[in-house]
Amino acid sequence: MKVFGIDPGSERTGYGCIETDGQRHRLVTSGAISLSARITFPERLQRIHEGLSSLLREYRPDLVAIENLFHSTNARSALKLGHARGVAMLAAVEAGLAVVEYTPAEIKRAVVGYGRAEKHQVADMVRVLLHLDTVPAPFDASDALAVAICHVHATGGAVALPADAQRLPRSWRQWRPPAGSRPS
Amino acid sequence: MKVFGIDPGSERTGYGCIETDGQRHRLVTSGAISLSARITFPERLQRIHEGLSSLLREYRPDLVAIENLFHSTNARSALKLGHARGVAMLAAVEAGLAVVEYTPAEIKRAVVGYGRAEKHQVADMVRVLLHLDTVPAPFDASDALAVAICHVHATGGAVALPADAQRLPRSWRQWRPPAGSRPS
Repeated sequence: MKVFGIDPGSERTGYGCIETDGQRHRLVTSGAISLSARITFPERLQRIHEGLSSLLREYRPDLVAIENLFHSTNARSALKLGHARGVAMLAAVEAGLAVVEYTPAEIKRAVVGYGRAEKHQVADMVRVLLHLDTVPAPFDASDALAVAICHVHATGGAVALPADAQRLPRSWRQWRPPAGSRPS
Repeated sequence: MKVFGIDPGSERTGYGCIETDGQRHRLVTSGAISLSARITFPERLQRIHEGLSSLLREYRPDLVAIENLFHSTNARSALKLGHARGVAMLAAVEAGLAVVEYTPAEIKRAVVGYGRAEKHQVADMVRVLLHLDTVPAPFDASDALAVAICHVHATGGAVALPADAQRLPRSWRQWRPPAGSRPS
């Protein structure tokens, strides 16, 4: 099963695709779509949409996992982020893929075992879980990989959790997707 | 010149296209894309994007004007609205069109002459300015037409303003687009 994670943003949109058997995960690709401040905002949205659409065509994941954000510092930044998330979701649904969403706290809990973990802790745990020599850069890319890993940990059945993740709430460790639902 | 106005929303996205010589405006089309609560949020975004893309292909406007919203009741509703605005802007830029943005207060000031006008006042002034017998329904459609009219009033040079609009700030009545910029 391949999961494609997205960490959307109007300045930089991180992405990361992993392949997993539920036990072991492998990095397929990761990176970030960086948007120049010199292009208009609608043009940035177009680059994000085109970039993600092209990656989804190339890597053909089974599912897209995307970071959600309910609490934002202010309505204006939430509105801006919404635009980037909107075109990211559009790329997924146009590719015929289901979209699942996780909050930053859920992602950190699932990957690091602690909902208020720092970015570098998330990045380092992503490195460990994907058996990499170095931390995937930039942070937007490791954040996107973390969303993908979060989805597997949240739904993947017999997933090898890091020892630290035993602090995950019981409901998280036991949750199984309903029969017949994705992921298979 | 044809201006296509959009009033984006994740439950209903209003649209309205007008044709204008800067003096007189004519209604080309208006309506709303209503989204069923039974489809997923990413599917709604897809319907908005597809619907607007198809309308822009059909009516070939010169420009897209879209309502902007800086102040929202809360970050969560701003985030949701951002998704709808994002895919609306994407449809415009994919159609090769420039996007201009106006805040609700700017739109109300330009159309009714009063930044805190009620929805029904905006709708009624839209009816008057477009020489229609009845108010365009739903409000999302008349709001979208108001954005389009706002753009003409803000930039169109010798525009026939309703008497009421003399209360517009001086800068609004005098503003001219820089030479060579859109609209021509």
